Amino acid sequence: MRRVCVVGAGVIGSLYAAHLARVADVSVLVRRPEQAEALRGGLRISGKSDFSASVLAVSEPAELPEFDLGIVATKATDLEAVGERLAGRFAGATMMTIQNGLGAEEILRAHGPWPLISAVTFMSGVRQGDAHVEYELDTETWLGPYAETATPLGAVQGVEELLVAAGLRARAFPDLRPAQWSKLIFNATVNTVAVLTDLPHVSQFAAIGELTDLGHLVRDLMEEGERVAAAAEVELHEDPWEMNVLAVRRGETQAAEGAYAHVPSMLEDVRSGRRTEVDFITGALVREAERVGVPVPLHTAMYRLVRARETA
Amino acid sequence: MRRVCVVGAGVIGSLYAAHLARVADVSVLVRRPEQAEALRGGLRISGKSDFSASVLAVSEPAELPEFDLGIVATKATDLEAVGERLAGRFAGATMMTIQNGLGAEEILRAHGPWPLISAVTFMSGVRQGDAHVEYELDTETWLGPYAETATPLGAVQGVEELLVAAGLRARAFPDLRPAQWSKLIFNATVNTVAVLTDLPHVSQFAAIGELTDLGHLVRDLMEEGERVAAAAEVELHEDPWEMNVLAVRRGETQAAEGAYAHVPSMLEDVRSGRRTEVDFITGALVREAERVGVPVPLHTAMYRLVRARETA
Repeated sequence: MRRVCVVGAGVIGSLYAAHLARVADVSVLVRRPEQAEALRGGLRISGKSDFSASVLAVSEPAELPEFDLGIVATKATDLEAVGERLAGRFAGATMMTIQNGLGAEEILRAHGPWPLISAVTFMSGVRQGDAHVEYELDTETWLGPYAETATPLGAVQGVEELLVAAGLRARAFPDLRPAQWSKLIFNATVNTVAVLTDLPHVSQFAAIGELTDLGHLVRDLMEEGERVAAAAEVELHEDPWEMNVLAVRRGETQAAEGAYAHVPSMLEDVRSGRRTEVDFITGALVREAERVGVPVPLHTAMYRLVRARETA
Repeated sequence: MRRVCVVGAGVIGSLYAAHLARVADVSVLVRRPEQAEALRGGLRISGKSDFSASVLAVSEPAELPEFDLGIVATKATDLEAVGERLAGRFAGATMMTIQNGLGAEEILRAHGPWPLISAVTFMSGVRQGDAHVEYELDTETWLGPYAETATPLGAVQGVEELLVAAGLRARAFPDLRPAQWSKLIFNATVNTVAVLTDLPHVSQFAAIGELTDLGHLVRDLMEEGERVAAAAEVELHEDPWEMNVLAVRRGETQAAEGAYAHVPSMLEDVRSGRRTEVDFITGALVREAERVGVPVPLHTAMYRLVRARETA
C-alpha cells in the first residue's frame, strides 16, 4: 500500500496525509479548490509533531492518481457527497472510514464495491488554516475489517503497519465493534453534554460529589449506552466512564501547563454555526437501542436538545 | 390595604409598583441606591400600559414607611437577603411572595411572623432601564393563603381587589397549590429546555411530528412533573402541556406582528451571565419528587445540565 489518498483535509485528514507522506505517495481530495491550492504549497503540522509535508492536492476526483488505500476523513455529514464523488472510480482501492458514530461504512458501501476498513481515532488537533494543523493528542487509531465486505484482516494489518511507519499510533483488531462501541458511548455522552452546557471536556464531567454534579448524568448516559451494547452482544473494549475520567485528568494536566481544555467536536461545530454529527453519534445509538429494544430516555432527551440547539 | 411596599424593582416588581401607585401609597425597596434615585424621578411603563407613576423609592429598610402589604418581587435567589433586611420590622404587614418555583414562603417565614400570601404571576415584560419597563403580557396573578401562617382568605381577596382596582388581572384561590404546581411544572420544563437549546419559547417546544422533535421532550418532562404532583396529592389547576401549546401559539401570533418571541427568565439569566433560579424551580421539583418517592430522571438530568451551563 504505497499509494494513499486522503479524502478531506480537516484536522484528522491532514494529520494522516502529512504523516503518511513520509512513507507513501499521498494524494488529497478536498472540496474547495482554494484549499487544494493552499495544500499544494505544503501541509504544515505543528504541536506534537513539527514538520511540513508535500502532498498532491486536488478538488476534482478525475484529477486523482490511482491509489491502494483511501482514507475517508470527512465529517460524517459529508459522506453521502463523498460517496457520489468516488462512485465508479478506484476499483482496486481499499477504503477506510474514520468517522465518529456508526454507519459510515454503509453509506460508502452504497456507492462502490471497495473492501472497507472500519476505524476510529482518538487523535485530535486544532485547525490553524487550510494547510496547517496544530497536533494535540497523538493517540491511537484503531482499525478492523468491515464484516459486510469481507475485508481480509491482513489488509487491515497492512494499514496498521503503514500508519506506524508514518509515526502514528495504530492498532488492528479482528473485530472493531467493541472499540467502536466504546467510543460511540463515550462520544454520544461527552459531545452532547458539552454542547448543552457549553463546557469543554473539563473536570465537571467526572464530578460526582453532589447530587447536582454533572458526572452523575455522564455516568447515567454511559450506563444507558452500555445496556444497548450488551443487548447488541457487543463486549466493550474499554469502559467509557474510565475513558472519561482519564481524559478529564489528562485535560487537567494540560490546563496546568497552560494548554486549553479539549473542545469536543460537536461543541466546536455548534460554536461555529455548523451542523453537528449528532445523527451519526447519538442518533445511531438511539436507533440501535430501538432495534434491540432497550429504552434510552436520557440519550433520546439529549438527541432532541442538541437537534434543537443546532437551530438556535 | 392602602399602603403597599414592593421589594425589588425588576420587571415584575415595577409592574406592580407602578399600577398600584394609582390606587395606593406605594413605597419601593431596592438594593442599589442608584436605582432608588432613578425611581424617585418616576417609574415608567410602556407597552400594554403607557404611563408614569410616582413612588417612594429607598435602598434602606429603615427609610421605609409602615405598610399593610409587602410584595416581595425579587428573584428567588435574593430572598434570603431580603428576609434579613426585613427581619424585626413591619410587624403589622402581610407579605406576598411571587417567586418562581417553590419554597419562597419558607425562606421569608424564617425571618418574621408576617402572615404570608403565596402568589404566582404570568405577567412579563422587558427591563428598559432602572425606572422603565416594557409591559409585554398583561396576564393574571394568582394568589392564595399560605397555609402554614393561617392567613385568612379575606386578606387574600383584599389583595385581589386592590390589584384589579390598579388595572391588573388577579384571581384569589382558597388553595394556591394547584396553580403553583401547574406553573412549577411548566416553568421547570420550559425554562430548562430554553437554557439548554438557547431557544426562546418558540413553536419547536410544541412540535411532535418527528421522533427527534423537541415537543416530545417537553411533554415527557411535563408528564414526569405531573406524576410528582399526583403523588403529592395536588390536582393541577391547568394542564402544563396545554399552557405550553397556548403560549407557543400566542408567541407565533406576536412574531407575525413583528414582536420578539418570549425569552424565559432562566435563559435571560444565562445570557446575562447571572445565576438562574433553577434551584427553586427544577430543584424544588426534584426535591419534592424525592420526598414522595417518584423517580424524575429527565428533570434530574436537566437540573445537572443547567447547573453546569451556569458555570460555563
